[in-house]
Amino acid sequence: MIPRYSRKKMTDIWEAENRFRIWFEIEAHACDANAKLGRIPEDAAKAVWERGKFEVERIDEIEREVKHDVIAFLTNLAEHVGDEARFVHQGMTSSDVLDTCLSVQLMQAADIIIEDLEALLVVLKRRAEEHKYTICIGRSHGIHAEPVTFGLKMAQAYAEFDRCLSRMKDARKEVATCAISGAVGTFANIDPFVEEHVAKEMGLEIEPVSTQVIPRDRHAMYFSVLGVVASCIERLAVEVRHLQRTEVLEAQEYFSKGQKGSSAMPHKKNPILTENLTGQARYIRAMCIPAMENVALWHERDISHSSVERYIGPDATVALDFSLARLTNVMDQLLVYPDNMLDNMNKMGGLPNSQRVLLELTQAGVSREDAYRLVQSNAMKVWDSRGDLQLLDLLKDDPIVTDKVSPEQLDELFNMDYHTKHVDTIFRRVFGS
Amino acid sequence: MIPRYSRKKMTDIWEAENRFRIWFEIEAHACDANAKLGRIPEDAAKAVWERGKFEVERIDEIEREVKHDVIAFLTNLAEHVGDEARFVHQGMTSSDVLDTCLSVQLMQAADIIIEDLEALLVVLKRRAEEHKYTICIGRSHGIHAEPVTFGLKMAQAYAEFDRCLSRMKDARKEVATCAISGAVGTFANIDPFVEEHVAKEMGLEIEPVSTQVIPRDRHAMYFSVLGVVASCIERLAVEVRHLQRTEVLEAQEYFSKGQKGSSAMPHKKNPILTENLTGQARYIRAMCIPAMENVALWHERDISHSSVERYIGPDATVALDFSLARLTNVMDQLLVYPDNMLDNMNKMGGLPNSQRVLLELTQAGVSREDAYRLVQSNAMKVWDSRGDLQLLDLLKDDPIVTDKVSPEQLDELFNMDYHTKHVDTIFRRVFGS
Amino acid sequence: MIPRYSRKKMTDIWEAENRFRIWFEIEAHACDANAKLGRIPEDAAKAVWERGKFEVERIDEIEREVKHDVIAFLTNLAEHVGDEARFVHQGMTSSDVLDTCLSVQLMQAADIIIEDLEALLVVLKRRAEEHKYTICIGRSHGIHAEPVTFGLKMAQAYAEFDRCLSRMKDARKEVATCAISGAVGTFANIDPFVEEHVAKEMGLEIEPVSTQVIPRDRHAMYFSVLGVVASCIERLAVEVRHLQRTEVLEAQEYFSKGQKGSSAMPHKKNPILTENLTGQARYIRAMCIPAMENVALWHERDISHSSVERYIGPDATVALDFSLARLTNVMDQLLVYPDNMLDNMNKMGGLPNSQRVLLELTQAGVSREDAYRLVQSNAMKVWDSRGDLQLLDLLKDDPIVTDKVSPEQLDELFNMDYHTKHVDTIFRRVFGS
Amino acid sequence: MIPRYSRKKMTDIWEAENRFRIWFEIEAHACDANAKLGRIPEDAAKAVWERGKFEVERIDEIEREVKHDVIAFLTNLAEHVGDEARFVHQGMTSSDVLDTCLSVQLMQAADIIIEDLEALLVVLKRRAEEHKYTICIGRSHGIHAEPVTFGLKMAQAYAEFDRCLSRMKDARKEVATCAISGAVGTFANIDPFVEEHVAKEMGLEIEPVSTQVIPRDRHAMYFSVLGVVASCIERLAVEVRHLQRTEVLEAQEYFSKGQKGSSAMPHKKNPILTENLTGQARYIRAMCIPAMENVALWHERDISHSSVERYIGPDATVALDFSLARLTNVMDQLLVYPDNMLDNMNKMGGLPNSQRVLLELTQAGVSREDAYRLVQSNAMKVWDSRGDLQLLDLLKDDPIVTDKVSPEQLDELFNMDYHTKHVDTIFRRVFGS
Repeated sequence: MIPRYSRKKMTDIWEAENRFRIWFEIEAHACDANAKLGRIPEDAAKAVWERGKFEVERIDEIEREVKHDVIAFLTNLAEHVGDEARFVHQGMTSSDVLDTCLSVQLMQAADIIIEDLEALLVVLKRRAEEHKYTICIGRSHGIHAEPVTFGLKMAQAYAEFDRCLSRMKDARKEVATCAISGAVGTFANIDPFVEEHVAKEMGLEIEPVSTQVIPRDRHAMYFSVLGVVASCIERLAVEVRHLQRTEVLEAQEYFSKGQKGSSAMPHKKNPILTENLTGQARYIRAMCIPAMENVALWHERDISHSSVERYIGPDATVALDFSLARLTNVMDQLLVYPDNMLDNMNKMGGLPNSQRVLLELTQAGVSREDAYRLVQSNAMKVWDSRGDLQLLDLLKDDPIVTDKVSPEQLDELFNMDYHTKHVDTIFRRVFGS
Repeated sequence: MIPRYSRKKMTDIWEAENRFRIWFEIEAHACDANAKLGRIPEDAAKAVWERGKFEVERIDEIEREVKHDVIAFLTNLAEHVGDEARFVHQGMTSSDVLDTCLSVQLMQAADIIIEDLEALLVVLKRRAEEHKYTICIGRSHGIHAEPVTFGLKMAQAYAEFDRCLSRMKDARKEVATCAISGAVGTFANIDPFVEEHVAKEMGLEIEPVSTQVIPRDRHAMYFSVLGVVASCIERLAVEVRHLQRTEVLEAQEYFSKGQKGSSAMPHKKNPILTENLTGQARYIRAMCIPAMENVALWHERDISHSSVERYIGPDATVALDFSLARLTNVMDQLLVYPDNMLDNMNKMGGLPNSQRVLLELTQAGVSREDAYRLVQSNAMKVWDSRGDLQLLDLLKDDPIVTDKVSPEQLDELFNMDYHTKHVDTIFRRVFGS
Repeated sequence: MIPRYSRKKMTDIWEAENRFRIWFEIEAHACDANAKLGRIPEDAAKAVWERGKFEVERIDEIEREVKHDVIAFLTNLAEHVGDEARFVHQGMTSSDVLDTCLSVQLMQAADIIIEDLEALLVVLKRRAEEHKYTICIGRSHGIHAEPVTFGLKMAQAYAEFDRCLSRMKDARKEVATCAISGAVGTFANIDPFVEEHVAKEMGLEIEPVSTQVIPRDRHAMYFSVLGVVASCIERLAVEVRHLQRTEVLEAQEYFSKGQKGSSAMPHKKNPILTENLTGQARYIRAMCIPAMENVALWHERDISHSSVERYIGPDATVALDFSLARLTNVMDQLLVYPDNMLDNMNKMGGLPNSQRVLLELTQAGVSREDAYRLVQSNAMKVWDSRGDLQLLDLLKDDPIVTDKVSPEQLDELFNMDYHTKHVDTIFRRVFGS
Repeated sequence: MIPRYSRKKMTDIWEAENRFRIWFEIEAHACDANAKLGRIPEDAAKAVWERGKFEVERIDEIEREVKHDVIAFLTNLAEHVGDEARFVHQGMTSSDVLDTCLSVQLMQAADIIIEDLEALLVVLKRRAEEHKYTICIGRSHGIHAEPVTFGLKMAQAYAEFDRCLSRMKDARKEVATCAISGAVGTFANIDPFVEEHVAKEMGLEIEPVSTQVIPRDRHAMYFSVLGVVASCIERLAVEVRHLQRTEVLEAQEYFSKGQKGSSAMPHKKNPILTENLTGQARYIRAMCIPAMENVALWHERDISHSSVERYIGPDATVALDFSLARLTNVMDQLLVYPDNMLDNMNKMGGLPNSQRVLLELTQAGVSREDAYRLVQSNAMKVWDSRGDLQLLDLLKDDPIVTDKVSPEQLDELFNMDYHTKHVDTIFRRVFGS
């Protein structure tokens, strides 16, 4: 997590202030529950809420001495609460606080990412509708195939990120659990009611069986989903980078007045934002491996997961939030060049219509094999001419072709509307109306 | 995928026979749909179902010539169907067949893994109930903490694999889609009804927007889930390996009569099955990275995903099926040694009760800090004696302690039942009754 | 490892026949050494070499009974050698055979990969020299930058794979060690001389300190190098894919007569070989993670590494050998289109010379900032015209420019030779002459 | 990179101050070279060295406006150097500065890691010699095998980290190259002599063929080596964790007076440092995947590698430096318990000698198979008794055994010195004397 690639809302989640705030809430709610159970005096619980406070610097100071963060926090809390502080943390273990806190932080982070995805979807939908019928060539293997529309590209991205949205909601559920079960998770020194109460108050589910720690398969799943979302970001980023290539130039990242593309070459406009996103994706998805390695803790728990999570918790969520926001911005401002799209498509001498001719010849009784050879031999001449020859002309000049398909029929086969007739069908599937 | 680590049911899914069977069904259902639309003669569709056949060797023979698997298949099919074969594959592209087929294969694989998980859960539940109250020491950081029961360990594993079960069901849904949308996915040469019909008949959902290929974020999610399941296998495998350590020996993989643990050392019984599973997990989860890298295909599609999937499709599913079956077998036959569990627990001179004493002292008005120091100083003597000294004895001899807590109270604090009183609560959460 | 992506020479290394052949040699050489030490009769050692044989099927048969591969092998060997067989494997443990055998296999695999790299280098050098001065546009960020030559691209690839060659030689050294140190590696039952002798005979170094197993950091390093080589393959593959894009078409994978690019679209020629290589690279490099996870074995050894290596040993080496051979073939036959390279370069209205103008203006006393703005404002007009306008014309029409740089000087700044003057320097650095 | 896991010496490398210092040196040396070539006035080069300065805050301020870090730096530099500043950066491109700077930073980081490894080796050697003959049981599969010494464990670790040391030196060489080759690397606007001069002055090699960027296979190799080193750290960390397990307790991380192992359980001493290192290793090695993905840049370069490197450059080197220092400290202070080692070994009723008996029986003419069965049947009784029975006693009571091997011979077979006779041989191999 580095400032250049961070947004405050997400980094705040990982700040000490927020962490201790969550700790405080967990402890205070636990006191409430213990008070209801008659385990501690009601006044003690009240005192915690009323006088409970903490100072990050003071906690740091104490931690330097006692070398234990939760004890440092509790000591600082006690400085404010006073004598009733000894009822705080009753029967709990540090992990109850730490793990439940991590759940809350990952849940908060998921909420921001969910918002980010929703914002991205709004932009993608708008661009999809704007360019619903903006024809451009579809490319398979980087080679012109048949026409699509730019709106279809946006609809595809929309559908993909819509899936990401529901995956993130699932990921949020995976981690949104609370464990207040004491050492090795047996509730020996704490009533399960405390866990239930804290869970309810913090918007979490209870962890059915914790073993001092919340099981790490949950977190592994969470970080895997972040990795999949990052990979989808990469897909759209790579699309933009391809479309901005000099020879293609069908779209372009917004380039502000006074911006410099290159310190050496004044003529450059580079797709640096989407290149940056490509790198971010590599970084974010790598985190899923250590997250999976964290699952196999020893017996009831070991603490090897902790250093990993101190890194990847902030790293992955901050980078993903930044990336989604950047992508949203890129797509929002993306310059789209419909004229270049048409130019590019027309460059290939009508080749994208080769399948239609093939099918028409088949309908006219030519075997698929013969039809394929017939069309291919003409198409390869066009290919070799790099579009100087037109496939339609060659076909009209080929008597074996015209014996089966009339010139008028051939003209009709090169009509572009043919390819867009189901755009609306697809849009209805994706956008629901 | 190697024979030693493979089970036939899963490898069959990836055999040519099954693949071509699925291709045949896709093509035949597509013919039905085209016939209903009046695009091809009803008799042609009927002929495909009636006379349609294929031979794997013949397809291979043709492929060596034409270098295209789908064309080879269609040619072989035509040899059986005859003239009506030219109505097969109308308006479709190879990817329609290949990608929908992969969906079916991954769905079939998911079904097996789901069965595997269900079988594992049955065993885990049985072992959990069997050892619901079999006391053993809980360990955090590999160090004795407080007592748990072996049944709780099993319940924890049950809950973890139960989550895996629902993740696998989600993963199955992720990939269970059908794309019959033609070149670059525009339905230019094929009616969307064909896709709907094939989807319904094959038990799939339609892919809302495909671009010749089904988007690979779905597969990335699928393989990530396999990786998480594998990581959970590793966790339980590592638990068994730890419990079988010479010094611990609380459980042991079944060791058959006549088995040899080591060719050199006749005294050995090694946890080789769970060590093997540990390795399998490393292998399986590594696959999620290439699966995520597959997401960012160029434009409407490139074929870089294909070689990856030819490997990891079989590799990951076969290894995971094998691993789950092996784990189920290990857990089913696991030798559990309750006496050793007690022995081990008692070895540490009652240290696992240190927290109870701490809490009791707190209740008796000692500050947490003082109580901690008091208990720790006695506990460390026991630790250093490696269990020759008993904590209870030392406490009874410590006047500062007995000033606050009577010897009778101290006896009570060392009662083991205290730790198991909520086992039933946890079991109810996990097993529902 | 799947047949479609495998070459016999490499798969043979991983066949049972080769594995048992290596086992036999290890055992026979060990007998020689033990005989020299007087530990076993000289005749016994001789008998092993003379009568020693094995049959893969018979070993399999025995293994099904005894469930231990080395014991099965030794039993089969004894069937041929007779009574003297009891002197075989004296003081050794299975791992001595297994681990030293894996060393030999990885060394053999490295030798093939080294040959593959050498063959690739020959082709790259030839293509580099052939196109030493074939001008094409250099692209940064996918955007036209300044001219390079196609030969330079090849020289770059040559230098990169030359580094891979020396990395592979290092990787070979990493794993080429021999351990015959007995249980837990103490030489308690075997003299270190046996290890020294076997090592020398098999072309290996002794492992300074083995612990029943050869330490897995060696293998981790080996598979990491395979991953780096695979990543270099990806780089060149992606270059070809880019150059074959319809709009670029500066190079093209060889497309044989009668080949079909697409079953649906007869006009297609797709870079499927290099797309395939892109996928192979993803797969191969993923293996380095489980290889690294294998390092942390428990105490003197556990066997979790074994299942991983049964997979990735063959998987990674076979896929890499196949990929290198395929890449060599692609580069050998690559169709290069110098005319298209020139066309593409000229499409951008002379923009690639913007830096030269900038520098010339600076030389003529204009501040860098002013010069940048001056060139950029003209360049952007050319960019927006998509090459219909020529930068040279605009500059000649710009009085602020011509005030500093004469039209004749401007003409000179657009001379292409300027960019190729150091091609020879670079070639000398890379090819040494 | 987070403060808790960072050491200043390493983080300083990644601070703006160091980065700009390196940039300054590159630019100033380049001026010298250009002056020698007569390309710029000698006075200009001199002025850069004499008046050249920069302020991090001022550069940040300018960058916020021009959005280009190198231009911001050059602008700030010009504010100090004055008019001659226009001769700075002549014919160079930003990447020349950025990539060469990254080389220097990675080289500096490598130097620290090399020092860290050397410090670790000193400690390991000391502990090895100290415990050269401290007998402890060797464990394979976590099960007692045969005796080793604690010194051998240390020697093994020494040899492993000694390999890491030479890998790090290689890794340093991999990245220690300089590229000053201008846009797309053709030296069109800059003489290769400048690169040679800067390289020599900065302690780098020239990059034979750069393409505006230094090829990323070098960095991929570098980060892979970091991953391997991290995995070796994990191995030793796991060893310590195992040895500190309650039932084993053969070694223990130093536990300071007043330290608290657990906030809840006052009796705990946990191996938290080595658990932490286990997690660090997971994190560090994950970085090699994005580093490998960075290799396949588009054409002459794209900038997708940059965001990845901004993360993993500091992340991986800082975490590795911290980890090595922590490991050195752990090993330096590690409490070793030879008595417990003996206790543990003796717990198993002499089972570790089973192989010797097996071999002796073979020598006495019993077939290996029969000898194995004979020893195993006695050994399993000892195993089942958990060490209450002694193997030696059982063997002496077994007439089939004593028929071949006398009681006196049996006594001799249980002599521990037998296992340590080659410790010195191994030490000579590892430590050279």
